Amino acid sequence: MPDSLNDFSSIKISRRQKTPLYAQLYNTILSRIQNGQITPGYLLPPVRKLAARLGINPGTVVSAYRELEQNGYIRSRAGAGSFVAELPTSPEQEPEDSIDLFEIPATEHDPSGSNIDMSSISLNPDIISIEQFKRLILKVLDRDQGHAFSYQESQGFGPLRESLTAYLALSGIHTTAGHLQIISGAQQGIDIIARALLAHGDYVFTESPTYPGAIAAFRARGAKIIGIPLCRSGIDLAILEEQLRRFHPRLLYIMPNLQNPTGITYDRETRSRLMGLARYYNVYVLEDDYIRELSYAKQPLLPLKVMDRDDRIIYLKSFSKIFMPGLRLAFLTMPSALADRILKVKRLADLSTSGLTQRVFDLYLREGIWQQHIRAIRRIYRTHYQYTEERARFLLPDKIRLLHPQGGLSFWGVLSEGINSTALCAAAAQNGLILTDGSGFYPLRTDTSHLRLSFATLTPAQIEAGLHILSRLLS
Amino acid sequence: MPDSLNDFSSIKISRRQKTPLYAQLYNTILSRIQNGQITPGYLLPPVRKLAARLGINPGTVVSAYRELEQNGYIRSRAGAGSFVAELPTSPEQEPEDSIDLFEIPATEHDPSGSNIDMSSISLNPDIISIEQFKRLILKVLDRDQGHAFSYQESQGFGPLRESLTAYLALSGIHTTAGHLQIISGAQQGIDIIARALLAHGDYVFTESPTYPGAIAAFRARGAKIIGIPLCRSGIDLAILEEQLRRFHPRLLYIMPNLQNPTGITYDRETRSRLMGLARYYNVYVLEDDYIRELSYAKQPLLPLKVMDRDDRIIYLKSFSKIFMPGLRLAFLTMPSALADRILKVKRLADLSTSGLTQRVFDLYLREGIWQQHIRAIRRIYRTHYQYTEERARFLLPDKIRLLHPQGGLSFWGVLSEGINSTALCAAAAQNGLILTDGSGFYPLRTDTSHLRLSFATLTPAQIEAGLHILSRLLS
Repeated sequence: MPDSLNDFSSIKISRRQKTPLYAQLYNTILSRIQNGQITPGYLLPPVRKLAARLGINPGTVVSAYRELEQNGYIRSRAGAGSFVAELPTSPEQEPEDSIDLFEIPATEHDPSGSNIDMSSISLNPDIISIEQFKRLILKVLDRDQGHAFSYQESQGFGPLRESLTAYLALSGIHTTAGHLQIISGAQQGIDIIARALLAHGDYVFTESPTYPGAIAAFRARGAKIIGIPLCRSGIDLAILEEQLRRFHPRLLYIMPNLQNPTGITYDRETRSRLMGLARYYNVYVLEDDYIRELSYAKQPLLPLKVMDRDDRIIYLKSFSKIFMPGLRLAFLTMPSALADRILKVKRLADLSTSGLTQRVFDLYLREGIWQQHIRAIRRIYRTHYQYTEERARFLLPDKIRLLHPQGGLSFWGVLSEGINSTALCAAAAQNGLILTDGSGFYPLRTDTSHLRLSFATLTPAQIEAGLHILSRLLS
Repeated sequence: MPDSLNDFSSIKISRRQKTPLYAQLYNTILSRIQNGQITPGYLLPPVRKLAARLGINPGTVVSAYRELEQNGYIRSRAGAGSFVAELPTSPEQEPEDSIDLFEIPATEHDPSGSNIDMSSISLNPDIISIEQFKRLILKVLDRDQGHAFSYQESQGFGPLRESLTAYLALSGIHTTAGHLQIISGAQQGIDIIARALLAHGDYVFTESPTYPGAIAAFRARGAKIIGIPLCRSGIDLAILEEQLRRFHPRLLYIMPNLQNPTGITYDRETRSRLMGLARYYNVYVLEDDYIRELSYAKQPLLPLKVMDRDDRIIYLKSFSKIFMPGLRLAFLTMPSALADRILKVKRLADLSTSGLTQRVFDLYLREGIWQQHIRAIRRIYRTHYQYTEERARFLLPDKIRLLHPQGGLSFWGVLSEGINSTALCAAAAQNGLILTDGSGFYPLRTDTSHLRLSFATLTPAQIEAGLHILSRLLS
């Protein structure tokens, strides 16, 4: 092994430049790869050693390496370090309208369980009643026999679409089973809408920050994404209007209730003015109802879809998220004008969602068990939310400010100037605390001043311990 | 309602023109729609009445209407007839790289059961042991508890990838769990490969005829599709080579064993020369192992993948097809050079395939039940195959010639000149026999001289009755 550390000790990076340190390091390594100074298989220096040699934070090196890896220039193997990747060469080159290289943050960070995981927003697996599930799946199998495994109509199991229609009516959404498409989770829903609605080069507006899986799906379709900032009352209407006028997007992707990752809920006026703008600029709205059920306020939150007078909102609802993530089950409402295309895209994407899962979930709705489940988890997580809020107020320094969403499974933290979220998360990881770096939620990763802290899988003692670590790192 | 029949009685169509009758009718109606002579909502004349007025076969009118519908110009509603559709207008126009409007043939034609269904290639639902499935799912739930429902790693459940690796080794495919991607059925696999590998305008070669779902997925990606004809020994190598030289495709999609829909199996020489061509022209091969297990010959069929010396074959295998179609479970092997992109596309498509299904199927493999299942269905369907073959030889006239695939769940029928498959299928449907029109298996629907006859869900008495109807229609 050549002494790669020496190769890199002459690198010039400076705190006085405007470009962040990690970006300087990224650019230096990239230009060496592109010049052929270092070639595929070349082992990069270990993070800590390079950081020590350059007199910078290890987190900065981690950030640079991570960006290089995400862009395909280097690869990492556990225990073996990072090395320069084989670059694609003609005729093996990447398609032009390239699949996005943006990573969707992993959803299970710490199977070992030795760290405190404030990144996972999955429910604690113990919350689900296995006995209940067994009873219902046996009921389906006894009732439907082999038909439970037959090819499933692409649009979805008819009785499930009927029971969903009745369930939606309770929230004020009036639709028909014929306008529902069953899908394999919210991610598939976003991807299907991208494929059914968008042409290469179309503009899509998202909230900024937003769910990275949505950014990946829109980019894969070759869409241009513009992020509209959020304020306390919801999406920033002034900026939204100005950008609508300039770019005439085809789609607006939003989470008006307990937005991911900020937890912000749109107020009444924002909702009503947003609908007016959508109408005036003739843009479709994809409402991702992320986690509305987990509102801890007295009044239940209403979907934006209830205000949809001209069939322009596609309402997307996942049951995976706060129920059984591994089952991959969600649905969306189809505007009549888009129904044909949505049905066709779903069909070519995977023919159908598992019919057995649909049959079981239909019983959950019909027997009211889903509704009981929601009430139960709301009770549990309200307590965890309040505990986290209270302890954070007591333990965390002023350098981080938490938003108070009054719902959901996480808090959005705003860091004081000068604190880099990516570096902080790297440092936290080294201290046994897994946080979600906020930068991944920005379409261009331009922001490094936010964190997401989740309490979804933690006990009060773990919440306390995690906040202690974070507090120490910020002091 | 205006008398639309009179509007159409002046149409000029002629048997003397080279253009088929249905295409003449299609073009006439289309030009009236495009001229604005007939407008959205206009009710077209009923099939039989128009056929009688023009002195043509009702099947011809059906074909013309169907093409118009598939291209979005008209819509049909049961009981209400066919009417001119709303045409998309700016800014609601369709994306440029348009989702393909090709229909994937429905997989369940006749839930009522009053017809004889020779179109379904799903197994008879009674073949699956519900008790066995119950036992295994309960075993998984007792073992894994709530973790059975947790977010699943995107690449697939590790133990399943391990047991698949061992299973593949038995057929001579040597790979690792790290090179397997679990997917939600073969259709998703094809779609993922299209998205990971193809850029807009890339060429893809398929067999002709081929699986329509593949055509739809490649078209949706903006690829140009060239169908290579099949002969008895497999793909036509002379034409393949000439077209490879001209178009340098990125991907070749084939089913070398018991091809769908023809049942053709490539011979040794074709396999070996094909691999040479693929290497020379540097093209990836997507091998869809459609139904290899159902070979009724003495020697088991080998996957083409066993001959893959330079990591160019993507081997795709669905377990849905001959097991539990509704479960949506399949996998593919990833060439190292494509693995990163395939993983990313899978992730943005639906995050993961149901973890519960994967856990259950893992036990099917580990306990050898899958293997027992294959042996059992091979025994059953060999008998049905032989029966159908024997009765067809006795009952069917010379006007249809069946290929003898020695495997699978269907026969491919070649019609004598002058018999139109689309019209024949329409006539059969009116007589209670559901057949699959072969034209849907051709990328440009240019062929109307083939049928697929399946015996997958039929009793011997139904097979006999179906062949009688077909025979009568051909006499």
